[in-house]
Amino acid sequence: MKPIGPLPPPFDAQVGVLTIAGQPYAHWLTKAGDTPAFVYDVDAVTARISRFRAAMPAGMGLHYAIKANPFPPLLAAMAPLVDGLDVASGGELATALPLGRPISFAGPGKRDDELAAAIRAGVTINLESEGEATRALAIGDRLGVRPRLAVRVNPDLELRGSGMKMGGRASPFGVDAERAPALVRLVIDGGADWRGLHIFAGSQSLDTAALIETQAATVALAARLADAAGAVPPLVNLGGGFGIPYFAGDRPVDVEAIGAALGEALTARADLLADSRFALELGRWLVGEAGVYLTRVVDRKDSRGETFVVVDGGLHHQLAASGNFGTVVRRNYPVAVAGQMGEAANDLVSVVGCLCTPLDRLADHGLLPRAEVGDVIAVFVAGAYGLTASPSAFLGHPVPAEILARR
Amino acid sequence: MKPIGPLPPPFDAQVGVLTIAGQPYAHWLTKAGDTPAFVYDVDAVTARISRFRAAMPAGMGLHYAIKANPFPPLLAAMAPLVDGLDVASGGELATALPLGRPISFAGPGKRDDELAAAIRAGVTINLESEGEATRALAIGDRLGVRPRLAVRVNPDLELRGSGMKMGGRASPFGVDAERAPALVRLVIDGGADWRGLHIFAGSQSLDTAALIETQAATVALAARLADAAGAVPPLVNLGGGFGIPYFAGDRPVDVEAIGAALGEALTARADLLADSRFALELGRWLVGEAGVYLTRVVDRKDSRGETFVVVDGGLHHQLAASGNFGTVVRRNYPVAVAGQMGEAANDLVSVVGCLCTPLDRLADHGLLPRAEVGDVIAVFVAGAYGLTASPSAFLGHPVPAEILARR
Repeated sequence: MKPIGPLPPPFDAQVGVLTIAGQPYAHWLTKAGDTPAFVYDVDAVTARISRFRAAMPAGMGLHYAIKANPFPPLLAAMAPLVDGLDVASGGELATALPLGRPISFAGPGKRDDELAAAIRAGVTINLESEGEATRALAIGDRLGVRPRLAVRVNPDLELRGSGMKMGGRASPFGVDAERAPALVRLVIDGGADWRGLHIFAGSQSLDTAALIETQAATVALAARLADAAGAVPPLVNLGGGFGIPYFAGDRPVDVEAIGAALGEALTARADLLADSRFALELGRWLVGEAGVYLTRVVDRKDSRGETFVVVDGGLHHQLAASGNFGTVVRRNYPVAVAGQMGEAANDLVSVVGCLCTPLDRLADHGLLPRAEVGDVIAVFVAGAYGLTASPSAFLGHPVPAEILARR
Repeated sequence: MKPIGPLPPPFDAQVGVLTIAGQPYAHWLTKAGDTPAFVYDVDAVTARISRFRAAMPAGMGLHYAIKANPFPPLLAAMAPLVDGLDVASGGELATALPLGRPISFAGPGKRDDELAAAIRAGVTINLESEGEATRALAIGDRLGVRPRLAVRVNPDLELRGSGMKMGGRASPFGVDAERAPALVRLVIDGGADWRGLHIFAGSQSLDTAALIETQAATVALAARLADAAGAVPPLVNLGGGFGIPYFAGDRPVDVEAIGAALGEALTARADLLADSRFALELGRWLVGEAGVYLTRVVDRKDSRGETFVVVDGGLHHQLAASGNFGTVVRRNYPVAVAGQMGEAANDLVSVVGCLCTPLDRLADHGLLPRAEVGDVIAVFVAGAYGLTASPSAFLGHPVPAEILARR
């Protein structure tokens, strides 16, 4: 037996039929037309944003990294509630522009046409290298538009407990901290509109103490870099890194403690940064737990002592849940039988997807209430890095519906 | 330094500019319009099919598992040259039907609408369970069409050296061998047109001796099952499992030795199978080495002693090359600088994709000729499980062109 991951609230307290945004799951499946489907509870996202606002020091900006979930109706609902949208490609830029919010554009491989589109639109480009800075300045000259450029920094510190390390080591993201002041000067002396610093030390950390320590160190680093560059950053993007629980034993981060500590760090910041604004950039933490993936049992079969519950979805929609995206040891995501929430889990099964590959396993040797053909399995924490981070064309299945749920 | 995987022939012998199907790579990029792009050499695929025909005993059927690469022009070119197409979803069925070839449909989670479409079209369904058999028979009754049904067997043997084990253990694929005779009887007594057995022990094996041994054991198993069922299988699909080299140290399978041994195994087969036809079902081995993924260098940067070559493609098109699809230890695929084939490789770099995630790495600490911004990097063995097995919507980049190359 391998433990099933912890269901996020409010689902962990539900008994009987799974409800999402106050309606039974069948209501959303009727809207979707069929399984498999993703349902995103926009009220849960709004509540997350409110919690962030309440926890963080006054004036702290909140950016949404749309790569976590770019579903257009969700994005439209979130855009007015956040202070900026971070995009990672020309395609995401085109999606975000009509929303009329401030946009920043990060990513290590921006092409000239992407830089040109961003500069034309007045978007802030988070520069990943000296070479990219030179290209952006030249494109600005050619277009006759003063580019808005921030400098992304590969910090000389690492976010402990981070699922994805992005600082403290060699990195394709940003320039090493010791080179950042010179790049700031290159931007300013090149005539661009310097927008500040972007310092991202890691992501998906559940270690509250490490997040607090990293944020304080990032504020201090920003001050040192500003001092060395002889220029005050208008904005310091402190990155994000707030993780969410996926696996047995995971505990959520204490956002209120982080906010309080960040308030202290900002109060104590160097005078040089007195007029700088600060922002955090979050993706997964805002939307991950708001999403549920619903997939129907097509078959139930035994083989050599193991019971397989075969569903009509799979890794083509939920690659990360199958353990094939950035994980070394496969562990079970939170899953449940949607009609039997909170009921006794004493049926030892593996939930496998419909793809003709042994990789397609959504739960491995987990205990669930007994699911029969026609029942619906819910995979939780499906709101971030779900459909768009999965090989949806694999084996030619239809694209699943995505539904925005609200009360 | 980590070794780069072995370039497949004919690319391993090229010097100077990479040529595909007799034309320099730039020719194909002009057709594609832009990088990144996939180029598939259809002549290389045809040569593979010819090699298979020459190596195998007379009458051995060849099925193509289209999930390996369902690019429609490639499929259209291959369809007349093989004896059958294997599909794994209703979507693949719809793609294959217009080609007018015999079709079989395997996959553990077939929905009722998929079974109905297959039965209506006269396609052979490889049954994965007793439950699926019962559903197929009922759907046939409802439609007034006699379904064509084969029985997929989870063999009591395992393909050694197999990258993906599919036999010898608990499996969602097929029914355990000891239950297969009863399922054959259920199909026959239910009035269906029984088409035979499908026995798949594993895939991506580079162990020639293991493949030979497994095929002989599979023929013997088919005889035992036929005897127990009291029925002669019209067709025995022996599966596939021929691997191709991806990583340093990998050696290709000896298809001629496999063909000779299979000829002996068939000559020695039980009398009961005298009138049975046999087929192998291959995907990766037919198309994998025929594909090249071309992506352009957008940036070149240093960080803490490591050099990053940043390209405009990445794991959204080549998930397996990034080490995030079914691999435990990340190793380097074969990659090269397309303008400097066979030249001295003394630049130690990591080739990273354009996605804003540390997972997006196409080569890790590999030695290549020096690549500058604007140069093109070729990733080889990109013809199977490439674009459709990757999260192409991730981060909103355009879908890359796919080009069919021929002389």
